[in-house]
Amino acid sequence: MKSFRKELWFEVPTRRAFINITPQVEEFLAESGVQEGLMLVNAMHITASVFINDDESGLHHDYEQWLEKLAPHAPVAQYRHNVGEDNADAHLKRQIMGREVVVAITKGKLDFGTWEQIFYGEFDGRRRKRVLVKIIGE
Amino acid sequence: MKSFRKELWFEVPTRRAFINITPQVEEFLAESGVQEGLMLVNAMHITASVFINDDESGLHHDYEQWLEKLAPHAPVAQYRHNVGEDNADAHLKRQIMGREVVVAITKGKLDFGTWEQIFYGEFDGRRRKRVLVKIIGE
Amino acid sequence: MKSFRKELWFEVPTRRAFINITPQVEEFLAESGVQEGLMLVNAMHITASVFINDDESGLHHDYEQWLEKLAPHAPVAQYRHNVGEDNADAHLKRQIMGREVVVAITKGKLDFGTWEQIFYGEFDGRRRKRVLVKIIGE
Repeated sequence: MKSFRKELWFEVPTRRAFINITPQVEEFLAESGVQEGLMLVNAMHITASVFINDDESGLHHDYEQWLEKLAPHAPVAQYRHNVGEDNADAHLKRQIMGREVVVAITKGKLDFGTWEQIFYGEFDGRRRKRVLVKIIGE
Repeated sequence: MKSFRKELWFEVPTRRAFINITPQVEEFLAESGVQEGLMLVNAMHITASVFINDDESGLHHDYEQWLEKLAPHAPVAQYRHNVGEDNADAHLKRQIMGREVVVAITKGKLDFGTWEQIFYGEFDGRRRKRVLVKIIGE
Repeated sequence: MKSFRKELWFEVPTRRAFINITPQVEEFLAESGVQEGLMLVNAMHITASVFINDDESGLHHDYEQWLEKLAPHAPVAQYRHNVGEDNADAHLKRQIMGREVVVAITKGKLDFGTWEQIFYGEFDGRRRKRVLVKIIGE
């Protein structure tokens, strides 16, 4: 069994953003040499997500609006977590979008449907944060 | 390490449905011959889910109503994604219900609690769509 | 390839609770002897979650309030599942918080960011329930 590990770093200048990380993840897969196996991609921070969906800017706008409705940022005082913090909503949003994805590796490629792309979802940016890619297989 | 891959196809005649896929997934597992390992089951489409919950029709009705309240289909014009499309809500619903499940394989069986069953959640049906089953182990 | 399996049991005296299970999971990992691999931690019940977030009591209070707003327990008669049951809301809450986490194992440790901790989320307690830990790797 082979295993491979690499981190992907971000410093998003805004509080929130969705970033397509599929190209970097594909590079890591090629580097690993794994042909058949599983890949885990997870946020290493608890105010960020990794998820799979469509690379379409209208949809990303819809996600932004929808998450803000389900877990509003303001007023920050509505959350007990916000004592010297203002990111409680980011911890909530991340639960809806998810911490991680597990992706099949087949014949050395991400085994994806036509429109599947991997995104980093930032909900409390403006500082350095990272994603873990772990691959096991053969 | 063994690996096994197979697709499961659907053509749901309605926009939305929940389908118990546990029997087919168990057949794939038997076919793989894997005794100890992990199984990934994921939607290959970004308007569908794979999730684990109860095979109880009342609950499925509750999920349907609840998802419609959290991410309404209409009015379709409320979503920027809906330019020549009307399925933005399906992309939202799928995030709540999830893209994938990872299941332990122990002694050649799905290592499940009493009531765990695997479902395909369709949120934009009426066309051919598929689920990936990937197994690794020994 | 090594594999390891162990259950973690709970009997939460209240209907809902969040319990940090990281120390027990780390013990299981040490016991497994796996240095590089993947660990699956999943609820074996469909009214409970396993998730990764912050061990901060204010945030847990916020989760409790927020989940109650998104998927209210009462009135129980609003849910069709509640025929001789009163836990439909627990099945809904569990979908938002998730069934499982998959964690990378690197050099014999959980490969975690600074604040990542694993929680059992109980939404219908007052009875014995369990979590599965499955590890594969080398």
